[in-house]
Amino acid sequence: MAKRIKAPIGVRFCDTDMIGHVNNCAIAEYAEYGRVTFFRAMPRSANELILVNLNIDFKAQMHLDDEVWVETWIESIGNSSITLVQDITANGKIAAQTRAVAVTFDYEANQPVRVSDDLRAHLAPYVAAATP
Amino acid sequence: MAKRIKAPIGVRFCDTDMIGHVNNCAIAEYAEYGRVTFFRAMPRSANELILVNLNIDFKAQMHLDDEVWVETWIESIGNSSITLVQDITANGKIAAQTRAVAVTFDYEANQPVRVSDDLRAHLAPYVAAATP
Amino acid sequence: MAKRIKAPIGVRFCDTDMIGHVNNCAIAEYAEYGRVTFFRAMPRSANELILVNLNIDFKAQMHLDDEVWVETWIESIGNSSITLVQDITANGKIAAQTRAVAVTFDYEANQPVRVSDDLRAHLAPYVAAATP
Amino acid sequence: MAKRIKAPIGVRFCDTDMIGHVNNCAIAEYAEYGRVTFFRAMPRSANELILVNLNIDFKAQMHLDDEVWVETWIESIGNSSITLVQDITANGKIAAQTRAVAVTFDYEANQPVRVSDDLRAHLAPYVAAATP
Repeated sequence: MAKRIKAPIGVRFCDTDMIGHVNNCAIAEYAEYGRVTFFRAMPRSANELILVNLNIDFKAQMHLDDEVWVETWIESIGNSSITLVQDITANGKIAAQTRAVAVTFDYEANQPVRVSDDLRAHLAPYVAAATP
Repeated sequence: MAKRIKAPIGVRFCDTDMIGHVNNCAIAEYAEYGRVTFFRAMPRSANELILVNLNIDFKAQMHLDDEVWVETWIESIGNSSITLVQDITANGKIAAQTRAVAVTFDYEANQPVRVSDDLRAHLAPYVAAATP
Repeated sequence: MAKRIKAPIGVRFCDTDMIGHVNNCAIAEYAEYGRVTFFRAMPRSANELILVNLNIDFKAQMHLDDEVWVETWIESIGNSSITLVQDITANGKIAAQTRAVAVTFDYEANQPVRVSDDLRAHLAPYVAAATP
Repeated sequence: MAKRIKAPIGVRFCDTDMIGHVNNCAIAEYAEYGRVTFFRAMPRSANELILVNLNIDFKAQMHLDDEVWVETWIESIGNSSITLVQDITANGKIAAQTRAVAVTFDYEANQPVRVSDDLRAHLAPYVAAATP
């Protein structure tokens, strides 16, 4: 089984909304936190990537007192793009699943660049199909 | 052409991140703001809906001084689900496009309920295919 | 009476928390939005200032549907510091009052710099004691 | 020495702003996180309290990769009010200090209520003057 990088989320009171659960935008923050934690373990920082698509399936409500974790791995690697998938769990059950497409981006030239061989080698152990 | 509901976004300084542009999670907040504005014009408040999927295409970077608007309309209506699409523009150009699936939800019974005929009638003028 | 700069706040759904009102951290965002709007009208951008103290009095609860405005003016100007005061109103009534001390800061030299004569001249019409 | 309750903060990428440091509103979120963690250890949840004043001294910039902790204790207890103080540290150095006044609040009656003897007894070991 492919490796995953797992990070704990400290749910903030302000992550909740007037419905009483964790707001969807906070879940986008958890997803970003997971991606940044993932890339911190790679030889390329998250701020050399640009996010081009984010898709979130909200499976169950999350609440303030839940123990939340985000697990991140790689679904596929294209020329300049990397597709990441995530399980976000609350008390051990999947509450959200994400798919994000990030592109290795040269902010000075303002264009995508090929995913380097070095980065590909580091990502390889984390490549797996998304959980069916 | 179908009707759309358009709302201005006041970009907050804290919406930016260390890359210097508007952070993706702030864009999720803009999308939510557009959806809530949309449903405020309908006979059902946004907090009787639950978001089950959110998909965002990030087309261009947004910045602090940009004039940002979100336009929201309906792509389709199912039994209990409503698919909303949005254009988020910065200085008149599309910076992000979203598709969100919301379900009319009974929070007490904790289950989806059919989109009412009354709500369908109000939504009808806003139904159109997403901009190709 | 001294001039004030007034900006409308679009309350976001995610600004609310599980208590059902606008969260205190969102009010800090409204205050920042007001300060940034204020300095946008001055010959110095908000990102050449650094915030050294923020004090917020929460006077009344704010809610999603409230019409919220922030009014910003200047209480006093020191050597390198500017003290701003704000009224944040919801439906015309004061819901929060803030006092913020910002310092004109040279981020490269990593130290405060004197408030320029030019900026002092522009700020002058906005200087007044805080509303008692 | 009085007891304190200490909580780790996972700095989120979206907590940063275009200046490159952690935004002041994120620091307000860290302070809230510390207060909520504190009250979770007490026989009264944070959502039975209402925040009436928040004061933050920003002492040093915080950045994405910093290891951030918030330590919370009590400065004083009045009839219905509790004054909390906090050190927020980044890599072991104080980056922000807060003072917050919270009131035990009856949201149904919409008015403050006396801090119970039970809560006073639980808070007692955490009462100390703020670090000078």
